[in-house]
Amino acid sequence: MTSILLYDTTLRDGSQREDISLSVEDKLTIAQRLAAFGMHYIECGWPGSNPKDADFFARAVSMNLPARLAAFGRTRNPNGSCDDDTNLRALVVAGTPVVTLVGKSWDYHVTQVLSTTLAENLAMIGDSVAWMKARGKEVVFDAEHFYDGFLANPDYALATLRAAAAAGADWLVLCETNGGRLPWEMEAMTREVAARLPGAQIGVHCHNDTGCGVANSLAAVRSGATMVQGTINGYGERVGNADLVTILPNLQLKMGYAVLPEEKLRELTTLSRYVAEVANLKHNDHQPYTGHSAFAHKGGIHVAAILKSADTYQHIDPERVGNMMRSVTSELSGRGNIVLQARRMGLDLDNEAAQHVLAQIKHLEHEGFTFEAAEASVELMFHRLRADYRRPFELLDYFAITERRHGRGLVAEATVKVKVGELIKFTAAEGNGPVNALASALQEALVDHYPILRTVRLADYKVRILGGTAGTAANTRVLIDFQSGTEAWTTVGANANIIDASWRALSDSMEYALIRLVDKGAPDKG
Amino acid sequence: MTSILLYDTTLRDGSQREDISLSVEDKLTIAQRLAAFGMHYIECGWPGSNPKDADFFARAVSMNLPARLAAFGRTRNPNGSCDDDTNLRALVVAGTPVVTLVGKSWDYHVTQVLSTTLAENLAMIGDSVAWMKARGKEVVFDAEHFYDGFLANPDYALATLRAAAAAGADWLVLCETNGGRLPWEMEAMTREVAARLPGAQIGVHCHNDTGCGVANSLAAVRSGATMVQGTINGYGERVGNADLVTILPNLQLKMGYAVLPEEKLRELTTLSRYVAEVANLKHNDHQPYTGHSAFAHKGGIHVAAILKSADTYQHIDPERVGNMMRSVTSELSGRGNIVLQARRMGLDLDNEAAQHVLAQIKHLEHEGFTFEAAEASVELMFHRLRADYRRPFELLDYFAITERRHGRGLVAEATVKVKVGELIKFTAAEGNGPVNALASALQEALVDHYPILRTVRLADYKVRILGGTAGTAANTRVLIDFQSGTEAWTTVGANANIIDASWRALSDSMEYALIRLVDKGAPDKG
Repeated sequence: MTSILLYDTTLRDGSQREDISLSVEDKLTIAQRLAAFGMHYIECGWPGSNPKDADFFARAVSMNLPARLAAFGRTRNPNGSCDDDTNLRALVVAGTPVVTLVGKSWDYHVTQVLSTTLAENLAMIGDSVAWMKARGKEVVFDAEHFYDGFLANPDYALATLRAAAAAGADWLVLCETNGGRLPWEMEAMTREVAARLPGAQIGVHCHNDTGCGVANSLAAVRSGATMVQGTINGYGERVGNADLVTILPNLQLKMGYAVLPEEKLRELTTLSRYVAEVANLKHNDHQPYTGHSAFAHKGGIHVAAILKSADTYQHIDPERVGNMMRSVTSELSGRGNIVLQARRMGLDLDNEAAQHVLAQIKHLEHEGFTFEAAEASVELMFHRLRADYRRPFELLDYFAITERRHGRGLVAEATVKVKVGELIKFTAAEGNGPVNALASALQEALVDHYPILRTVRLADYKVRILGGTAGTAANTRVLIDFQSGTEAWTTVGANANIIDASWRALSDSMEYALIRLVDKGAPDKG
Repeated sequence: MTSILLYDTTLRDGSQREDISLSVEDKLTIAQRLAAFGMHYIECGWPGSNPKDADFFARAVSMNLPARLAAFGRTRNPNGSCDDDTNLRALVVAGTPVVTLVGKSWDYHVTQVLSTTLAENLAMIGDSVAWMKARGKEVVFDAEHFYDGFLANPDYALATLRAAAAAGADWLVLCETNGGRLPWEMEAMTREVAARLPGAQIGVHCHNDTGCGVANSLAAVRSGATMVQGTINGYGERVGNADLVTILPNLQLKMGYAVLPEEKLRELTTLSRYVAEVANLKHNDHQPYTGHSAFAHKGGIHVAAILKSADTYQHIDPERVGNMMRSVTSELSGRGNIVLQARRMGLDLDNEAAQHVLAQIKHLEHEGFTFEAAEASVELMFHRLRADYRRPFELLDYFAITERRHGRGLVAEATVKVKVGELIKFTAAEGNGPVNALASALQEALVDHYPILRTVRLADYKVRILGGTAGTAANTRVLIDFQSGTEAWTTVGANANIIDASWRALSDSMEYALIRLVDKGAPDKG
């Protein structure tokens, strides 16, 4: 069974999507998650173009992740030298084992956009690849606009590949940069390239401008490509990159390629939703394989038929990708992963407890909560079921105000009333905003009794409006990341009122901190 | 040039999507719009399954739309008679020129789901088609699960088609019902069917479960299908139906088929967004051809290249589908982007003005604003530079409170003080949350003087904390999407205080609405 390698460029090409803005922390958590999932290559960024990436690379490389990290950049400048090329030097400084160089393969671009000669472009490619190889890098050559170039001037397009290959490039990736091709064209052209470059390792990089990003990638694989570049959830500029979340199960479950272990494939749905959460984007309910609606069946007839025999209405068993069948009119499905999660926490739950948590989760999800990224909220539900569990505090009231008065400026204050043991604590705090003020007031109310909470701080805060186009009168979901030393966790809150949703997440987090930090002793200040 | 016919099932299959709920009025306006656009067939509903549809059919048929309206239903019951079949009779009562009958083509379904014999199923198909033909209908036979059936038992699957054809069916539509096939399978199987049924008019009906709904449909067309069934924006159950909005330009602009007149194709983007609006769904910014981001380019370098020659980075001229090229304003942009944007707004900016706006943008970006998605905020900056521009109102104060009191529940209120002309307006509003309350109070303060603002509503609301791990004391960026009829725009606000950031985005949006809506006249209510 042929192996296909996945090359994930969510953090570079994917992050060029208009409405994505990833902090360095976001990128690191995504990189870790991708590596844990089994992505073979992770393209982390473009050090020459974004100074923020320099810090990211330093930290990412030092994590020793199981994936091969790649830094992305261009071939040297026309008539320049590699030694003097700041972009190439930045790529080396990034310190990754892999460097991906994008170079022109379309003669039109060479003359019109780069304003140089066809020969010089070949030298740019050869020089840059050789220079990187000499520095011990695995080199991926991204042939930009390859298919347009191959149509316009096939000999030149192939010459660019040969220049890279001769200089030692490990991979020749054919990029369908404008996104305008259709699958049979991709299949035919890729086959021709593979025939003309026997022995070369060929990859493919597609975009989704004709709605065929997935199909185009699969077509290239059929023709000999053994690396597929893409992004999680198809994130990317314009219409997006090829969606690895759809491509992977297509390759493995439909086409019989070996890509990842079966148990990793089962984590696909969680991975897909996790990356959406971190990117603060709504997960696409209708995404192939991983969408909330992907295996949702309406009506009693379907469900009865499916209960008889699942393949009557489903093209695969959803559990193979970690999703589940849902029947929209009645909830028949269970939650194997809830029991799994409990077990992982060392909590032995009988069926009844798991069902209880399941029911609670379903009810809350109906109100807008999501738990894929908010594991602390789920864990808290389990702990509260323990016979010996006592709630550490009881929330009574809160009050939060923001005002801006002409000539006076901006003020945000909050008061919180909390019962801790027999005492009622009533605290006030100021903040830069109402949620910050609430967080401070709550922490202030609890620290006398629970000094360890002094170490807890709010690290990130994401808000989504749910319910399509209902605006701020719709349901609001808040995800809050907390940290204490190297411990980190996320809680969720949902309510039509953003402050109230935040309040829920804040108080759950304080309660959870007491479980998490006490178990582990004093937090590591390192 | 071969003609391909489009069969739109947005109102039937598309409306089975989980989060769509169309009223009879909605369906009628969509039907009219589809017909005006030039859809050849419009499948309106399932009269036997939805009593609401009866009223709809009566009204739709009486409109004498230029499209051929179709009513959808099943073949007769096993061992029943057509005359006594309530479903078939309802189809006739619907009064459409076309009736579409779905019947089983997969032997497995016939025996396991229908619990009848293979022979009886053939009779069901033949009888029902003949019965409809006798009543003067054009009959479309939808062969359900055809491709799975053809793989399992090709002779039987073909027999079902022959039964329909022999009874006079005008169209034999091969349905890829489970959505699990890949394009080359579709191409090969459809070719075989076409070869075995020479002279038949073949159609195809795909779903998107493998992310190949579009590619599968195109593959079938390459093999001889001359009708494509699908929905606007790919709406449908699970992962959706084949997206006609993507298929149409692929067929016509890429594959050279004659489908619709050029000037109709130019209405594609408007049609796509209109249907989303009526269905109360957010239009997919990243949809092929028609998405707001479909032809958006980041970075000064790309823009410079495109200004030189549009096909360097675009696979088609966006105006052919009624969309437009956009340059995305961001930290990377040089003067080129800004001037382009201004020119499109009909503003002639000299270099100095462009530099001024650019400097403003860079400064604000440093404070946390982002402008990629907030074009309205950028446009506003330009307008404010105009010598003849007068600010429509002046913000003085605001005040927003959220409180939850034990036994009293949750309250959110806001007051706003605004100067409009010589008047000072001081309004109060309640809301589900503080931002919602502020939005209402602001709108209330302005509508007497600017009645057109009554039509403005807040559609989506995104919040990010900036600055890595500084939590709620860090800078907060808010992006707010507004709508009025089919007009939509986005503004941005940033501040350490989430309420204040929202306030900025809200007030910019109201000011921008007055420019946008006044220029365009009253909003289109559809």
